[in-house]
Amino acid sequence: MPVFLDTTESDFEIEFARLLSAKREDSPDVDDTVAAIIADVRARGDAALIELTAKFDRLELAPGALAFTPEEIDAHCAAVPDAERAALEKAAERIRAYHVRQMPENALWTDPDGATLGWRWTPVSAAGLYVPGGLASYPSSVLMNAIPAKVAGVERLCICVPTPDGVVNPLVLLAARIAGVDEIYRIGGAQAIAALAYGTESVAPVDKITGPGNAFVAAAKRRVFGKVGIDMIAGPSEILVIADSDNDPEFIALDLMSQAEHDESAQSILITDNAEFGQAVAAEVERQLEVLERGAIAGASWRDFGAVIVARDLDEAAALSDRVAPEHLELCVADPLALSEKIHHAGAIFLGQWTPEAIGDYVGGPNHVLPTARSARFSSGLSALDFLKRTTLAQMSPQALRAIGPAAEVLASSESLQAHGLSVTARLRKLNE
Amino acid sequence: MPVFLDTTESDFEIEFARLLSAKREDSPDVDDTVAAIIADVRARGDAALIELTAKFDRLELAPGALAFTPEEIDAHCAAVPDAERAALEKAAERIRAYHVRQMPENALWTDPDGATLGWRWTPVSAAGLYVPGGLASYPSSVLMNAIPAKVAGVERLCICVPTPDGVVNPLVLLAARIAGVDEIYRIGGAQAIAALAYGTESVAPVDKITGPGNAFVAAAKRRVFGKVGIDMIAGPSEILVIADSDNDPEFIALDLMSQAEHDESAQSILITDNAEFGQAVAAEVERQLEVLERGAIAGASWRDFGAVIVARDLDEAAALSDRVAPEHLELCVADPLALSEKIHHAGAIFLGQWTPEAIGDYVGGPNHVLPTARSARFSSGLSALDFLKRTTLAQMSPQALRAIGPAAEVLASSESLQAHGLSVTARLRKLNE
Repeated sequence: MPVFLDTTESDFEIEFARLLSAKREDSPDVDDTVAAIIADVRARGDAALIELTAKFDRLELAPGALAFTPEEIDAHCAAVPDAERAALEKAAERIRAYHVRQMPENALWTDPDGATLGWRWTPVSAAGLYVPGGLASYPSSVLMNAIPAKVAGVERLCICVPTPDGVVNPLVLLAARIAGVDEIYRIGGAQAIAALAYGTESVAPVDKITGPGNAFVAAAKRRVFGKVGIDMIAGPSEILVIADSDNDPEFIALDLMSQAEHDESAQSILITDNAEFGQAVAAEVERQLEVLERGAIAGASWRDFGAVIVARDLDEAAALSDRVAPEHLELCVADPLALSEKIHHAGAIFLGQWTPEAIGDYVGGPNHVLPTARSARFSSGLSALDFLKRTTLAQMSPQALRAIGPAAEVLASSESLQAHGLSVTARLRKLNE
Repeated sequence: MPVFLDTTESDFEIEFARLLSAKREDSPDVDDTVAAIIADVRARGDAALIELTAKFDRLELAPGALAFTPEEIDAHCAAVPDAERAALEKAAERIRAYHVRQMPENALWTDPDGATLGWRWTPVSAAGLYVPGGLASYPSSVLMNAIPAKVAGVERLCICVPTPDGVVNPLVLLAARIAGVDEIYRIGGAQAIAALAYGTESVAPVDKITGPGNAFVAAAKRRVFGKVGIDMIAGPSEILVIADSDNDPEFIALDLMSQAEHDESAQSILITDNAEFGQAVAAEVERQLEVLERGAIAGASWRDFGAVIVARDLDEAAALSDRVAPEHLELCVADPLALSEKIHHAGAIFLGQWTPEAIGDYVGGPNHVLPTARSARFSSGLSALDFLKRTTLAQMSPQALRAIGPAAEVLASSESLQAHGLSVTARLRKLNE
């Protein structure tokens, strides 16, 4: 059973603070191992990749066979049943339609001082997506990472996906093809991140790396950050559901379990204004845990990190949610849009009883790569913007330089940066000749 | 003298690659020291801050006197001469006007499947700006960091600025006041970053930390990243100037020196299509170096990292610039806007001969916090967006769930996430009752 809290009880603040600060992940310290792997790939390139793949993935790669050939991809894609293919295509179409709307506008204007100002967005030239192998090899994540990159205009998009013991997930290859991925390499781990960041004979370096991975991948991403851009380092998944009593306890219980089944460190929290409803959901969770295929995992998550919180009212529930800043937030209330306006910190909000979070994992349209571990306080889910950067533009007319140049001279002088000031002074002098 | 390269010479590629890979910064390894400082501040709060400030800044802070009082700020601000005050106000006004235009729109729409989708932008609740003390204590940087935060709607904005030996830069306090900063603490170094990230008795924790700093500050920001958001870790400043022969060599020489005077690791590069003009600029630089107050620093930067490159034409110059991905790029050519469209990777572009880079440092309007060390390939300068985050919104109507729910069920099943699928199935069943 999870923890039950009630905001009217005297120890609520202590218990809620405990919930917020629960350490939900054991990150083994793999930094030294990862540093050695990166150095090895930088020094020996493909030879290191081949050796490390044999060691970690038990797979002998022939030199020059790190990438899947188009024919290999064809063959794997042909093996995907029609229902899966149609579902992936439907998902891709909806994800693309959503992310196209994120594309920002360029701007250029002339202001009253005569300065022409603006900015221009340009895509990253090359991006690499990491896709875990084995059990957590999710084709939906391929779509969610690759489509925003292609929408942004990334010219060269490659994937690294390990194939332990040579096992390939054909849905991953099909998702990559649907999303427009250009290259697919059968390498993984820190060695794949090193190859993407620094390049080898077979893998040209990229400018940005995104995608989830294990502790080795995460440590490698942290280490190459600066040399290339990276997305967030994702923690265990989370869901917070705010539900009034006018909901089906089964729906809510399944939504809570759909995060809990990801892994034992996931967190599922229900906040309700009705204690009886909270008990009903908790009872339904227990029933589901007995039959769910991943019940052992979900049960551990629910027991160790789950919570049912009874709040005085929905406003209090929203305020508590803001303190959690959840990755996923469901608002199962009569007017979910109105309640959503009281929320300031959440990765994604799912509005109303017909919007289970799982819709957002696959086919809703918005991205499922979202900030975890309270980082929704300061960061956003993956978007087309993550594959774009902005160059600012400024052009002074002679009039503009006359108008604002003197202020620059004063500030340069106050900062003791003489050449800064003189670069303005010399021009003003010439304008006054 | 800097290196002179000519793209028509056989060893150009080798020499250009050397220029690109030049290691321009010695980052001492201060990680262990910083880890200890952060642990100390977390454990002992204000007491640690007071002790560390006494040790590093030779300043005894009374308990409860870590923040400047409004009266102290008043007194310092009153000491600022009118010319500086007016210049700061002009700069602030122009920076604000530029950044207001960056504010993104919220969105909400209903698509053909009946799904209502969108996003909402919200500001970070609290942000902390680090401002170096001593020589590199730049009031312009206060404006450039604080104004975007306030434009974004950050409610609580605080500054940490060390005051070694008690020396205060009144322009920094005035810039903070003009920008609307709420709290100013006289603490610095890794201890200030720790206080901002974790909080102490006197300093409430923030959600995002920005601003430049020395190696200790940079290491501390890297270490608290994840607990809070951070901006980029800035390297030494850079300028690349593309200029044809129709320019005043003095202007260009001063622009190159205005970066070189920042520090000995700064880099200034001229690319021109006219060898004689390149020589004329280089000769003018030598003349300037003899008289500039910071000539020794600028001279070292120019000698060790400067370059004059003669290109076949301006298109080749633009392509070379993209390989550098410079922080600052000046286009001093007849049609700078047209040439700018051939540039894909640059932090900020300054168009035409009347736009010295120094205008952008102070009063142009665009931000002067820009990506260094080739990171313009994948990142942008500071903006209002850095203090905002986006929550995605999704609401399924019954019609929408019927339309797209089955695809979610298929994909959940293919990923062996049963509860994900059941959360959709249960709702579809109820809709069909």
